[in-house]
Amino acid sequence: MRILKLTKETQNNILENLLKRSPNSYGEFESRVNDIIQNVREKRDEAVFEYTLKFDGATIDQDNIRVTEEEIKEAYEQVDPKLLDVIRKALVNIRDYHTKQKQYSWFDSDESGIILGQKVTPLKTVGVYVPGGKAVYPSSVLMNVIPAKVAGVSNIIMTTPCGKDGKVYPSTLVAAKEAGVDAIYKVGGAQAIAALAFGTESIPKVDKIVGPGNIYVALAKKAVFGYVSIDSIAGPSEIMVLADETANPRFVAADLLSQAEHDEMASAILVTTSEALAEQVSVEVDKFVEVLSRKEIIRKSLDNYGYILVADTMQDAIDTVNEIASEHLELVTKNPFETMTKIRNAGAIFIGEYSSEPLGDYFAGPNHVLPTNGTAKFFSPLSVDDFIKKSSIISYSREALEPVYKDIVQFAECEKLTAHANSIRVRFED
Amino acid sequence: MRILKLTKETQNNILENLLKRSPNSYGEFESRVNDIIQNVREKRDEAVFEYTLKFDGATIDQDNIRVTEEEIKEAYEQVDPKLLDVIRKALVNIRDYHTKQKQYSWFDSDESGIILGQKVTPLKTVGVYVPGGKAVYPSSVLMNVIPAKVAGVSNIIMTTPCGKDGKVYPSTLVAAKEAGVDAIYKVGGAQAIAALAFGTESIPKVDKIVGPGNIYVALAKKAVFGYVSIDSIAGPSEIMVLADETANPRFVAADLLSQAEHDEMASAILVTTSEALAEQVSVEVDKFVEVLSRKEIIRKSLDNYGYILVADTMQDAIDTVNEIASEHLELVTKNPFETMTKIRNAGAIFIGEYSSEPLGDYFAGPNHVLPTNGTAKFFSPLSVDDFIKKSSIISYSREALEPVYKDIVQFAECEKLTAHANSIRVRFED
Repeated sequence: MRILKLTKETQNNILENLLKRSPNSYGEFESRVNDIIQNVREKRDEAVFEYTLKFDGATIDQDNIRVTEEEIKEAYEQVDPKLLDVIRKALVNIRDYHTKQKQYSWFDSDESGIILGQKVTPLKTVGVYVPGGKAVYPSSVLMNVIPAKVAGVSNIIMTTPCGKDGKVYPSTLVAAKEAGVDAIYKVGGAQAIAALAFGTESIPKVDKIVGPGNIYVALAKKAVFGYVSIDSIAGPSEIMVLADETANPRFVAADLLSQAEHDEMASAILVTTSEALAEQVSVEVDKFVEVLSRKEIIRKSLDNYGYILVADTMQDAIDTVNEIASEHLELVTKNPFETMTKIRNAGAIFIGEYSSEPLGDYFAGPNHVLPTNGTAKFFSPLSVDDFIKKSSIISYSREALEPVYKDIVQFAECEKLTAHANSIRVRFED
Repeated sequence: MRILKLTKETQNNILENLLKRSPNSYGEFESRVNDIIQNVREKRDEAVFEYTLKFDGATIDQDNIRVTEEEIKEAYEQVDPKLLDVIRKALVNIRDYHTKQKQYSWFDSDESGIILGQKVTPLKTVGVYVPGGKAVYPSSVLMNVIPAKVAGVSNIIMTTPCGKDGKVYPSTLVAAKEAGVDAIYKVGGAQAIAALAFGTESIPKVDKIVGPGNIYVALAKKAVFGYVSIDSIAGPSEIMVLADETANPRFVAADLLSQAEHDEMASAILVTTSEALAEQVSVEVDKFVEVLSRKEIIRKSLDNYGYILVADTMQDAIDTVNEIASEHLELVTKNPFETMTKIRNAGAIFIGEYSSEPLGDYFAGPNHVLPTNGTAKFFSPLSVDDFIKKSSIISYSREALEPVYKDIVQFAECEKLTAHANSIRVRFED
């Protein structure tokens, strides 16, 4: 891996390079995606079936679009019982963690008759998109469905592309069933997003769409935002490790590679105050790459977006960490908890040398759907918050309103909204 | 006002009619807005100055783009002291309410050395857009700035168009100063949104943009979403009143009109179980309209989007309320708190006959930036939540990881991510 001295200029160059991966520059596919959405909106099921034949090579209709109980039973027979066991253990951890995120309705009252509050209501129907294609990610099913379930969403719909044979991956089905999905439809791509946003004869309209997907899915989600809510658009995966001389170079190298293997756009960055560590990690990375099955991807990803940065001071290193705002951040320093208090921007923070990033991907409990590409400056991990919404509650008695009603009238009149003023005044006429 | 019998069909027709007002169908202006954004991104201040001259007729440059302390002092001299007094009272209520929304970092630990948690961090820099033009809304300044302030945002930037004379409305400046805005720039329109999203020589790049605006502002916000965060795109204002025979028809009529006066796209709907009330409210509406200053707007708005619906049962009425998911909802029934528990979807719920909607616009404390156009099904009022973001915290000791590490390896291998598996395994190689 390349080793660079961390300067303000290096930092800015890297930031600029990383932003090339932004899902915001997908404009070229937009019109194709908009056509698909428009078609599904108008022709509904008919368009969904056509696109599924065209893109996935599968013939589906109203009778077989929905995964049956029989198919789910088959899937259970096909999945390795050891994997099922791990899915169940992970599920408990994920549910426990997300349960702690629950927010509750509250109100506050005073003796004059003022009641103010906030009512928390789960969304009613949520659509979870699960990619098909090359990779199977049952962990992604768990991470998207469980927070919705914990929030109390009563209807969780999943869509995922099927193969030419009309089948969905068994591990996807098993994970969905374990997590508590209510219905699964064999549709993928922008057509699935459009169907969830507007509804068809077979697929119900949802309030929110979550889940990862390719560029068509990402663009379709952006296009239907406003008609429904969406989670944020995920960019390529990222890891940043902040380490000092106390870190184990072999662990650090292995963790950098765990993200580099995702795809050629993934980014892996070590920032360290130790030149010795920088050298050692670089050597360990080379050794590991040789023996890993995805070495082609890893090499490209490291060439494109892999860096080892040597900082003069820990404060410089921390500043860069906060500027880059990585999806995953590992802290491997002498006092990692103290370091953590100085971190403003990161999707998930892994503290100490045994908190390897994949622990969070699969098992520990916090969500692995995290803000990428610098958006950790303003976005949060997927959470129970994404599946609830709030309503303000306002109640004033006559006794409470009377002493302040003239103030409100005054404010409304200053904004020249006389009907606003009237609605307050009418309550105290003669 | 027209009186209709509430049926499933009436409900669906109204829903369809209301959705015509959706800010999602603004496509026609998109290319113009995209040009402005592209220009500001490339030419920065230069483009901002050009557009300000073109659209606002004002000559600004790097020396006068920012509102000075002197100008703020002048504004204080021009604002009616009674209005200042009301602004200050409202500010205290708004701050008190939003303070109750604060969320805190938490963590949970166990004896095996597992620490999981969630770190809450305020956004660093926020941009608040304040419209200029026909109307002046100091209340909007308070509602957008105070939650950011309460969240702990350290840099709150405001942009608002100036008049041809380079001046900003005094009440806007005073409200901004009172609420604690850090810098005010005299820029409006899509060019202001682009400047906030990408930064210029004069205007700093922000993490999130909030605040209402015209169609150009709304489209620009949608376009920069992803580069920065935004609040939701506001549609026209809405009120829904759910009332039974106990309601005062004069109060109900006045409250319907308070929203109808906003603009011709505003919607005002009464749903009631009482035919007598329906008739009386209609009469009272006619009487009020005659004497209100904005009667032209009100008439059009009522013709377009005003309805009185008579429901057979309270349950039917509640179902329609939940389907329409109004921005503002007043409950004027015998047991309004009990009714409230059945409401799933509404931006703000006003309970009882003295809780007139404008009380919430100006004074009570809850935010008046609310989800419109049915989006209360999945969006929430603007709140402190909008100005914080979260990071997951994960820490496992060696003792905690060891008993589960093989499970994680198994999960990673099932997903064919061997570098993920490697990063866990390497920690236990002898």
